[in-house]
Amino acid sequence: MRTFILYARVAKTTPDFLLKDLPGSGGKMDTVCRFVTSSLWLSHAVRRDVVVYTVLNGSPDAPITIEWRGDSMKRVSPDERSIASWIKKALESIREVKKGKDKPWFRIQEGIRVSRKSIQEIVKDLKDRSIYVLEERGDNIRNINIGKDPVFVIGDHIGLPKQEEKFVLRYGKKISLGETLYFASACTTIINWNLDQS
Amino acid sequence: MRTFILYARVAKTTPDFLLKDLPGSGGKMDTVCRFVTSSLWLSHAVRRDVVVYTVLNGSPDAPITIEWRGDSMKRVSPDERSIASWIKKALESIREVKKGKDKPWFRIQEGIRVSRKSIQEIVKDLKDRSIYVLEERGDNIRNINIGKDPVFVIGDHIGLPKQEEKFVLRYGKKISLGETLYFASACTTIINWNLDQS
Repeated sequence: MRTFILYARVAKTTPDFLLKDLPGSGGKMDTVCRFVTSSLWLSHAVRRDVVVYTVLNGSPDAPITIEWRGDSMKRVSPDERSIASWIKKALESIREVKKGKDKPWFRIQEGIRVSRKSIQEIVKDLKDRSIYVLEERGDNIRNINIGKDPVFVIGDHIGLPKQEEKFVLRYGKKISLGETLYFASACTTIINWNLDQS
Repeated sequence: MRTFILYARVAKTTPDFLLKDLPGSGGKMDTVCRFVTSSLWLSHAVRRDVVVYTVLNGSPDAPITIEWRGDSMKRVSPDERSIASWIKKALESIREVKKGKDKPWFRIQEGIRVSRKSIQEIVKDLKDRSIYVLEERGDNIRNINIGKDPVFVIGDHIGLPKQEEKFVLRYGKKISLGETLYFASACTTIINWNLDQS
């Protein structure tokens, strides 16, 4: 099992963003969509052993987290617009749910659920697994033994906020893909490939 | 200089495909768009040393090739819809151009040109460089020295047609990313990363 968590700092948390303007009206929602696709899809199949959490932290109702499970996902296409439509559906479903201490998951369709959990709550739920935070000053992925069932936490183009990074590092360690700064979607492709080779 | 060539077997060659249905009406045009993005974009910049050729081979007017140059590209966003809009513009421009032996390039905007060249003609133009064809039975990329100014030829989900592969292999050799079959867009991400590390 591989888990990828994206912290999307400005991704909108209401469903009224435009499918024809994901970068602008969606708060770089195109980045979130590409992340889901590159984490989960192979050429002719969905990766059954991958779970993705996209944590949306933009206005006006953050945080909202969407879970994407490769082992049960059906009828989802890998293009940005299709993924964005599912995000819209998830945001519609959670809109009526009152905020509270208890933050249950709501099923949207096979393989897709939504919750009001924050990145800290998601990470805490996974704290018994090996957790890695992507950061250019970490150990290079080629030099470390990743181990079984890893969890990778990835920031968007600005990176994780300091406070969130500090929290995640209580449970995990920094890992690097080198000095070049890649799109979040490229990061998961590169991590998946490195794990496929071993 | 790195060059990536995508052979897109069913990508439409008229501009009347729908931006809201790239996979269906565009003949998997979403795949072409993701390929352009993953070949050219870093987190905060476009790769200046990359040139991409997307060879569209779908009905009704194939082949049409679009060139994307990282060293001069401006005002292009990396989301699928934006890339697809530029493809539409390129297909509109070439529609009026008569077919003939001479196949000039037409400028669409900074960094984007279009021509009626086929994959064989594109490869022939680049034949003095090191050419690699992505194929699962090739030598693993980790075991070979890629050298300067490489050219990578990548098929879509079905791969290159036998006849085209045979032609390209006159000038190049097979290279592999392992036994897993990836999206074309993932292939360029993985190749770029491997070259970034060396």
